[in-house]
Amino acid sequence: MAFIVKKFGGSSVADAERIRRVAGIIAEDYRAGHKIIAVLSAQGDTTDELIEKASELSGKPPKREMDVLLSSGERISVALMAIALENMGLPAISLTGRQAGISTSADYSSAKIERVEGSRILRELDNGRIVIVAGFQGMDKYDDVTTLGRGGSDTTAVAIAAALHADKCQIYTDVDGVYTADPRKVEGARKLSEITYDEMLELASLGAQVLHNRSVQMGKRYGVEIEVLSSFTPGVPGTIVKGAATMEKTKISGVAKDTNTARIAVMGLADTPGIAFRVFNEIARAGINVDIILQSIGRDKTKDISFTVPKEDLQAAVATLEKKKSELQYSAIDTNDAVAKVSIVGAGMMSASGIAAMMFEALYDAEVNINMIATSEIKISVLVRETDADRAVDAIHRKFFE
Amino acid sequence: MAFIVKKFGGSSVADAERIRRVAGIIAEDYRAGHKIIAVLSAQGDTTDELIEKASELSGKPPKREMDVLLSSGERISVALMAIALENMGLPAISLTGRQAGISTSADYSSAKIERVEGSRILRELDNGRIVIVAGFQGMDKYDDVTTLGRGGSDTTAVAIAAALHADKCQIYTDVDGVYTADPRKVEGARKLSEITYDEMLELASLGAQVLHNRSVQMGKRYGVEIEVLSSFTPGVPGTIVKGAATMEKTKISGVAKDTNTARIAVMGLADTPGIAFRVFNEIARAGINVDIILQSIGRDKTKDISFTVPKEDLQAAVATLEKKKSELQYSAIDTNDAVAKVSIVGAGMMSASGIAAMMFEALYDAEVNINMIATSEIKISVLVRETDADRAVDAIHRKFFE
Repeated sequence: MAFIVKKFGGSSVADAERIRRVAGIIAEDYRAGHKIIAVLSAQGDTTDELIEKASELSGKPPKREMDVLLSSGERISVALMAIALENMGLPAISLTGRQAGISTSADYSSAKIERVEGSRILRELDNGRIVIVAGFQGMDKYDDVTTLGRGGSDTTAVAIAAALHADKCQIYTDVDGVYTADPRKVEGARKLSEITYDEMLELASLGAQVLHNRSVQMGKRYGVEIEVLSSFTPGVPGTIVKGAATMEKTKISGVAKDTNTARIAVMGLADTPGIAFRVFNEIARAGINVDIILQSIGRDKTKDISFTVPKEDLQAAVATLEKKKSELQYSAIDTNDAVAKVSIVGAGMMSASGIAAMMFEALYDAEVNINMIATSEIKISVLVRETDADRAVDAIHRKFFE
Repeated sequence: MAFIVKKFGGSSVADAERIRRVAGIIAEDYRAGHKIIAVLSAQGDTTDELIEKASELSGKPPKREMDVLLSSGERISVALMAIALENMGLPAISLTGRQAGISTSADYSSAKIERVEGSRILRELDNGRIVIVAGFQGMDKYDDVTTLGRGGSDTTAVAIAAALHADKCQIYTDVDGVYTADPRKVEGARKLSEITYDEMLELASLGAQVLHNRSVQMGKRYGVEIEVLSSFTPGVPGTIVKGAATMEKTKISGVAKDTNTARIAVMGLADTPGIAFRVFNEIARAGINVDIILQSIGRDKTKDISFTVPKEDLQAAVATLEKKKSELQYSAIDTNDAVAKVSIVGAGMMSASGIAAMMFEALYDAEVNINMIATSEIKISVLVRETDADRAVDAIHRKFFE
């Protein structure tokens, strides 16, 4: 008998037929004698429909009220799932985030889980029930409803698994695991049976949208093994995200592409100490995350600093820099949003020599020009023209996996 | 400055335009310096849509889960209203039934309000906010969501008005008050400026669906004056439901028709003591409410008992009686569901002589045959053929009001 937390996303519970399929998956494990907690997202388009309703009334609806509004979506899906399970003759009970003991910070629309008070969940499990928990939501110290923002339901599942010491945390998505590259685009992409938390974090941040970073970080912190698998192909083993201990040896785990990136070059900055700090301090104060940074070697007492930001932040970043032009004393700003970041990720990468060279050789063979390069302990990223990105991913994947 | 509880039904908040109209009504009173609590129902068809989703999954969904499901409807409307008000620059906050301190019994789908713990509402009002409360819902002692059943949002509004000693409780519906007869059907029907609780109770139970009985009963018990008015014609005074003290003198307050009724006759029952008790005890144990009862004078040592039930309970009532045929020892059951109940209501009716005679004369003139008659302190009901009902109402209304 195992104690399993399962999470199903919005597309897995989008209609009655899919709810019944998920109920079947839950039922199978329950009948095998396991204790089951299922965390659900809102059905399919519910959240978008609710956002649309709010936008008809206000251009800037208050976040507290948006949380009351949006949290109703998960309440609907958990009630429906409990109804489907009871209809199969199985004892089930739905719990809201609050009832499940999810305490959060009071940051409406992006609350952080602070504590999981699991007594109600445990009592219901002890009564032999399948417990269905509304993901993405909790309650703050003011007794108000909060939502957790992007990746919220995954995070709810991992937090519950951590707090209640579950044996497994299974995240069901519409893909059946983590692949060495996007299987819809790269022929020969293969599913990984295991991946480390750190590799998964890099892959997620690089545009491989399987698990949200927050849930992986929480899994890493509390040592919760997370299995990614598909509700559409039940029985097919997925990918297990875990610590490094039992990992199989591979050079790299995957190739990822991120087209949501834009490059900014600040040219002709004074070549004095602290200038980089001042540039990035301004950008940070504008709430913009910077990714790859490249600084040219100074010449003529000036230097250039290039960096990438998410595409949607490009205009704000430029505006921030222009406002501070007199203080920063640069000569010009150049931007390019027709770029993409292509990366390889692997925990053992830095100890294996020649990985970077292999990657660059693949790009050279595919005639892809590299704009910028960034490396970390477990990844190498290059910035390329957006139109070259798919060819780059394909070439690199062939190089490493064929 | 007054302290006003306002309740708006589902059709009043069905879409963005209507929400804005209701927000305008609330805003006007708030800007005039009043403290405002607004209780809302779920938007238009939301409840029906949610019921449909559940019925796709189960023929008999558990009531607890239905309450979790359906209560999300009011959460959506209160959040949207708060968003609309904030967009007008007014401070507003939405509260769920639980947050508003509505404690109920644990009878899922038909919970009774046991207590209103108003500290959160009062705190928000003291902070100058308009408080928007989700109607129809509360929380039981197990920390579970409950819904109040039919008329639930009206009841929420009156309960809050009673517990917090509000000056007024205004129920906005799609009609602008209580009429002497259905204004869509009876020419010359006129709006009452006042009506007593008891008269309103009789009218509501007779098919004039303006206020639900539960809210009127609660208003009567706690002395809350309830004004019925329309959100579609703001500014037009409605009808005030109150105690008898300041009532104007009228013979009768209104004429009502109820077509949701069916007649059952149990024939050839033994003319022995206790037989009526045994018949109605069985019916009550089946959870069926009986309305008009008529017992024939015994002859040949047998008697007939006729009574009316809601149309939807007719089959269940017959089945109950047939199952007990050997004990009850009747000869036959006769049923008729093509009947309607037509009633006149008036607090001063029994002290004014000739009211019944006037009613019967009107029916005689209109050539309407009377099947059964029932009277109470403040009403006289007759059972007629369903096809005669509108003509009967019209004739009676002309007799009394022209």
